[in-house]
Amino acid sequence: MSGGAGTRLWPASRSDRPKQFLDLIDDHSMVRATLDRLAGLATAPPLVVANATHADLVATELSAAGHDPGRMILEPFGRNTAPAAAVAALHLTADGTDPLMLLLPADHVISDVASFHAAVRHAAVLAAGGALVTFGVVPTSPETGYGYIKTGHPVDEESFHIERFVEKPDSATAESYLEAGTYLWNSGMFVFRCSAYLAALSENAPEMLAACVATMKASATSNGVLLDADAFSATPADSIDYAVMEHTDRGMVVALDAGWSDVGSWAALWEIGEHDDDGNVLIGDIVLSDSRNSYIRSEHRLVTVAGVEGLVVVSTPDALLVTTVEKCQNVKTIVDILKSRGRPEATDSTG
Amino acid sequence: MSGGAGTRLWPASRSDRPKQFLDLIDDHSMVRATLDRLAGLATAPPLVVANATHADLVATELSAAGHDPGRMILEPFGRNTAPAAAVAALHLTADGTDPLMLLLPADHVISDVASFHAAVRHAAVLAAGGALVTFGVVPTSPETGYGYIKTGHPVDEESFHIERFVEKPDSATAESYLEAGTYLWNSGMFVFRCSAYLAALSENAPEMLAACVATMKASATSNGVLLDADAFSATPADSIDYAVMEHTDRGMVVALDAGWSDVGSWAALWEIGEHDDDGNVLIGDIVLSDSRNSYIRSEHRLVTVAGVEGLVVVSTPDALLVTTVEKCQNVKTIVDILKSRGRPEATDSTG
Repeated sequence: MSGGAGTRLWPASRSDRPKQFLDLIDDHSMVRATLDRLAGLATAPPLVVANATHADLVATELSAAGHDPGRMILEPFGRNTAPAAAVAALHLTADGTDPLMLLLPADHVISDVASFHAAVRHAAVLAAGGALVTFGVVPTSPETGYGYIKTGHPVDEESFHIERFVEKPDSATAESYLEAGTYLWNSGMFVFRCSAYLAALSENAPEMLAACVATMKASATSNGVLLDADAFSATPADSIDYAVMEHTDRGMVVALDAGWSDVGSWAALWEIGEHDDDGNVLIGDIVLSDSRNSYIRSEHRLVTVAGVEGLVVVSTPDALLVTTVEKCQNVKTIVDILKSRGRPEATDSTG
Repeated sequence: MSGGAGTRLWPASRSDRPKQFLDLIDDHSMVRATLDRLAGLATAPPLVVANATHADLVATELSAAGHDPGRMILEPFGRNTAPAAAVAALHLTADGTDPLMLLLPADHVISDVASFHAAVRHAAVLAAGGALVTFGVVPTSPETGYGYIKTGHPVDEESFHIERFVEKPDSATAESYLEAGTYLWNSGMFVFRCSAYLAALSENAPEMLAACVATMKASATSNGVLLDADAFSATPADSIDYAVMEHTDRGMVVALDAGWSDVGSWAALWEIGEHDDDGNVLIGDIVLSDSRNSYIRSEHRLVTVAGVEGLVVVSTPDALLVTTVEKCQNVKTIVDILKSRGRPEATDSTG
């Protein structure tokens, strides 16, 4: 799943080239890293669900990773994750087979691939038994930017039934979750048999399933499947959690302790980046003096920083953002202001 | 006097175009503002002492202000203020006259011109009587960035004999100066009869006077006076305060309360700038969210700032500075690092 506009990583991320296509972490995009992370899992060729405007970007990443660039389902617009998973499941079962589907957002970072593979194999066993499996990240801090999953009865040492999903908590609540030890971060990754997901959708969101079936019938296939816009517009926008997981009694969660981050903000990039002795993450042409715990990114010219702490500085050819690690969610406000003024810097990348 | 490299206002100020030539305050350079500030004082045509590499810049400013662009003394290198004042005094007395000389650094801001004029007229009366007069700014805060003048016996309500000059104080000392009410900021502006200054120089720094006399004899005149480098290199570098004022018993100080600032740092520009309701000074293409008491300057592209306080952000076509109002003196460290690496951004303006 390569959706999302990545507004919270503006000004690096733009609508026409959002964060999953950027080399924010290393020399590869996050789409590429997500594809490469499958190596060793003996999966079938990957299928990418993406916005149609990003078709060329996705095809390039698929080719670069050694895959068929036509393995895409292209959405005319986003309808959240539940319809995306539905059209993927319908596509994968069109030939009469019923494979297990590993569903991964393309904008995550996972540093410990071996642990990730072990968790996926574990989840596959549970899903083969009929479960709808999600992954819950073992929390390392009282994060307020993630939703949580309250674990229920254990299935085995590494997996649980799901007691309930909880929304992003405030600080005090997040602290209590961390202490309780029975809450996991909701990762948005899943494994289920295609038929199991479609059956759950039929039970809990039948109008969505009907719209997705109609969409697949009306859609064109050339380089990838281009979803029919009229038909797809009839599907409600909803997440897999809301549409299915919160209602089914077949949900399970596998604990994942693999250096996971959703790269959802500049603060996240500061956390997972390589720090210097003063806790700074520095990318590009930067001269620093007397500064600590800051994320400084220069994409094209000299950036100098002196006497600051906990700052985020991101410099691109056409725009600069200065904010703090703590308040970097404010970038959404900035992008909203820019959009309201019709500024191209809000949406268009510079090449 | 248009000397100085203005390093503390990097990256706007560069060696080849230092701060006094920039439109930092309003639509005019500080050189131009210094020339224009004379209007109404019935002075003779102004004479600018500047570095020879800035000859074209100075001539342009003189012309734009309606003055003869040839009224320049051009130094091959800086030797501080005492030699600059000496060559100016020698030049002004070359025709056998002995005028009063008003000596002004070209990088100051004075918001209340009427009060400035009144103080100059007052100083001229004292100087006509033989005094070497400087201006002491009535302090409005416990500034640690300025030297101070301790006032002695009063001459009249607005002027004093000079008890002593004191170096830049620490915070506690500056507080005590402010409370005492007998300390003024050392402005570096002077009025004296040319012969009085030259006589004081002869008494207290005879080798400097001799070198300056030799320099003037060896110098060429075409567009302005170009000081002979060999001869000028023999003059010691010293300030008027050190070379003369601290030794003479003819020194007086006129109190000046005219909205004076030496524009010596980004913090000074933040203080004298026009503030929005949140205490920010914003110049250029800027989008702000939830930010206070910051100085943000964009010279060429979109700058966005969110969730910060007391920050300095200066963006030029080839370099960016991010620091704090409190620690903006650190920019000297940045420029030193850049010079040690041979970076052109340290010295060369981009046009």
